Amino acid sequence: MKWYRVAFVAIAVAAMTLAGCDTRQEPLFKASVDYTIEDGVIILDEPARAEGQQSMIEFRAEPMEVVRVGFVGLGMRGPGAVERFTYIDGVAINGLCDKYVERAERCQQYLLNAGMPEATIYSGDEGYKALCEREDIDLVYICTPWQLHVDVAEYAMNRGKHVAIEVPCANTVEECWRLVDAAERNRVHCMILENCCYDHFELTTLNMARQGLFGEIIHAEGAYIHNLEPFWEHYADNWRLEYNQAHNGDVYATHGIGPCCQVLGIHRGDRLDYLVAMSTKSINGSKLTRELMGKEECRQGDQINTLIRTVNGRTIDMQHNVMTPRPYSRMYQLVGTEGYANKYPVQGYTFKRDAIYGAVFDAVPDIEDLNHHAFAPQRVVDQMTELFKHPIQCQLVNGVPLQEYSMQVGGHGGMDFIMDYRLVYCLRNGLPLDMDVYDAAEWSSMGELTRISIENGSKPVKIPDFTRGDWNTDEVLTFYFAD
Amino acid sequence: MKWYRVAFVAIAVAAMTLAGCDTRQEPLFKASVDYTIEDGVIILDEPARAEGQQSMIEFRAEPMEVVRVGFVGLGMRGPGAVERFTYIDGVAINGLCDKYVERAERCQQYLLNAGMPEATIYSGDEGYKALCEREDIDLVYICTPWQLHVDVAEYAMNRGKHVAIEVPCANTVEECWRLVDAAERNRVHCMILENCCYDHFELTTLNMARQGLFGEIIHAEGAYIHNLEPFWEHYADNWRLEYNQAHNGDVYATHGIGPCCQVLGIHRGDRLDYLVAMSTKSINGSKLTRELMGKEECRQGDQINTLIRTVNGRTIDMQHNVMTPRPYSRMYQLVGTEGYANKYPVQGYTFKRDAIYGAVFDAVPDIEDLNHHAFAPQRVVDQMTELFKHPIQCQLVNGVPLQEYSMQVGGHGGMDFIMDYRLVYCLRNGLPLDMDVYDAAEWSSMGELTRISIENGSKPVKIPDFTRGDWNTDEVLTFYFAD
Repeated sequence: MKWYRVAFVAIAVAAMTLAGCDTRQEPLFKASVDYTIEDGVIILDEPARAEGQQSMIEFRAEPMEVVRVGFVGLGMRGPGAVERFTYIDGVAINGLCDKYVERAERCQQYLLNAGMPEATIYSGDEGYKALCEREDIDLVYICTPWQLHVDVAEYAMNRGKHVAIEVPCANTVEECWRLVDAAERNRVHCMILENCCYDHFELTTLNMARQGLFGEIIHAEGAYIHNLEPFWEHYADNWRLEYNQAHNGDVYATHGIGPCCQVLGIHRGDRLDYLVAMSTKSINGSKLTRELMGKEECRQGDQINTLIRTVNGRTIDMQHNVMTPRPYSRMYQLVGTEGYANKYPVQGYTFKRDAIYGAVFDAVPDIEDLNHHAFAPQRVVDQMTELFKHPIQCQLVNGVPLQEYSMQVGGHGGMDFIMDYRLVYCLRNGLPLDMDVYDAAEWSSMGELTRISIENGSKPVKIPDFTRGDWNTDEVLTFYFAD
Repeated sequence: MKWYRVAFVAIAVAAMTLAGCDTRQEPLFKASVDYTIEDGVIILDEPARAEGQQSMIEFRAEPMEVVRVGFVGLGMRGPGAVERFTYIDGVAINGLCDKYVERAERCQQYLLNAGMPEATIYSGDEGYKALCEREDIDLVYICTPWQLHVDVAEYAMNRGKHVAIEVPCANTVEECWRLVDAAERNRVHCMILENCCYDHFELTTLNMARQGLFGEIIHAEGAYIHNLEPFWEHYADNWRLEYNQAHNGDVYATHGIGPCCQVLGIHRGDRLDYLVAMSTKSINGSKLTRELMGKEECRQGDQINTLIRTVNGRTIDMQHNVMTPRPYSRMYQLVGTEGYANKYPVQGYTFKRDAIYGAVFDAVPDIEDLNHHAFAPQRVVDQMTELFKHPIQCQLVNGVPLQEYSMQVGGHGGMDFIMDYRLVYCLRNGLPLDMDVYDAAEWSSMGELTRISIENGSKPVKIPDFTRGDWNTDEVLTFYFAD
């Protein structure tokens, strides 16, 4: 079969000539890594693992009695993280960094409130470098605008620090590889702060799935559907709208895909194979960029749709929409051979086995009855939700189950706290983290991969194997506990 | 740019070598019409319009005082149709035909119950021919297994009869062209019996959309999600499972796509441009075909996912799943620049404009509040549902609004009756039908088009323009009334 290596400009011209593409966009499209198109399938170059690097699958760092943390980026998401960390035992907050000094200083209050010593303040465009260079910091917790994530994380990892990065961790495939390589080269953790993996419904459902209640899960759905209308003007220097204005594609895919990948055991026995993506035109987005940026055109379509197939023949349906009025939704639907789970807009479960909730089929089918397999009754769901709590939800914190404890601390209903708690817990006990650098890369790569598909008229794009062949080492996703 | 004309076998081999394809399937894949692959995009040959044929857009037949109808196919869906027709004024039922004579005879009872004269019975594999050859039949109403739809319909149209065909009307793109050509050549109606276009929520929502309540609709969703477990053994000679066993793809797309296309004004100002489709592997399907057919392999994946883009930059998300336990759903979601509608699993509307239901945004956004744009309260939905009833729902039948009347007659909650009533009403008044032969072709073509995409590793497939350039003649979908 023939290979065609295609220059970027040629690709762009080809994409523009396909009917149905939005011809208003500038024709120049640049991918972060080279790619070829083989028989209509887009294949990105994958860099070989450098000598001396090794897989981070099941990586454990030395246990640490106290996790000494520095925070970088204290605008929208950072301050809440600082406050939550004051509720976790075995934590020392040694550095607080933001471009704007007053935002860093404001966070001292959380430390004072908790009776913790003040942290050193860092500010300015390169304040994070001094923070990362400190000896007495183990973990750099990064909540900057997306555009800075990888620069900060790489700088920290190269100085031997573990990192935890807000979502998406990286904006391009090239940046994903930089995270993978920095983690492998320096033997440090790189965790994606994907809080939605810790929401109560997702955790319980993941546990039900593990117990086989849904049979084999063959299809999953995830989304970020959140009208950001009231938020746009509150991002420092308008960074978020600027990013959306400049990039088509599902640029915020991790809330949707993260929980799906955990359930499907991605790089634990299965692997994302390829995707196709499709975007609507931009109407509301362009209205916004005209009003707030004076730019006629928003590159990002108002709604982005993506289909992904795994090498084991399962599929994922993803959506991204931050522009139109819809109820908030991450979809989160699981289609299994024996059952079904649905989080948005209503939480429900359906099971095939009569035994589970005593339903029986009629002997003769009733053509008028379209609902043989309705959601299980609420009392059954309530019982099962209690019965199938994930071990993480039951983990004791000062004698209180983590789920209850997390709801007292708060942060998106508790999921933020469970995430932070698990990060510190695994570091203190020298355990593999719940999410590794390959999760960070796989989930974050969606932004650029979907863009490449869209800008090539929805052609299939092969998804890089960031584990470089180690995706089948573990059979299932494991959450580790000390005892 | 180069063109590659590819033989079927070559295509099949190429598709099989793409990683992620289900390599268990036989390599021979035959499309019903020739196609080329240009720069990775599959383009089907489109036959030119034969001399003497003309467009059926807004076609009207001569008004008829009484619609004389013959029914072909009286197994699963036919008997209900016969019964419903006995509730419509201005109808004569002159022929009843089924392969099995006893099924045809059983339907006489509906006529007797209604005090109507007995109809002539036809049976056997070719009984429909004699029925179609009668002078005193205006309309042939076809409810046979899918495999026979086009043979019967073409035979009837070639004898000057109007036809109404159960869904999908056609199984292949070639069959879709046969319907279009037969209708154009004989100047007769060919209506798709897409009952879901007449469900109450869909009609009201379509009217809301027309009134601009959702702004511009940029994305729509439709599905056929219905676990057919209790039904499989009740299809004569197991025809339905045999069809699914032999064909991958969204073979039953019309319930999902029909209402979406009406809202988007497909071939009334916009046009389906291209699609990509993706299927899961087959687990439950193969279990069924082993048990019921002794065949190891079901070609159809348990779940099929499709994305469609229109030339005006709007998208449709479609799903097909008849194999796993999920609550019945046709999805039916509309994403507009100013509002949102959602039918399954809960009916709801969201609107951007505060005025509509008096909601106001907080002055400062609350990062914890993910639900700024929740569904409108039930009382508002109830009021709007009343206020925005579609003219069809309000049309009077013997002094009763059609919606109420339809619910008394029954048939999937009334939508089947509204469909039949509208068909007869438009014929009697010499009006264009609500759905024309191009709708029938566009919606029914999804089965094969999705299969071609799936069997080529989800490559984009251009959707034929069955109107042959007339898709922009009408600006909106119009429902006609006599006065």
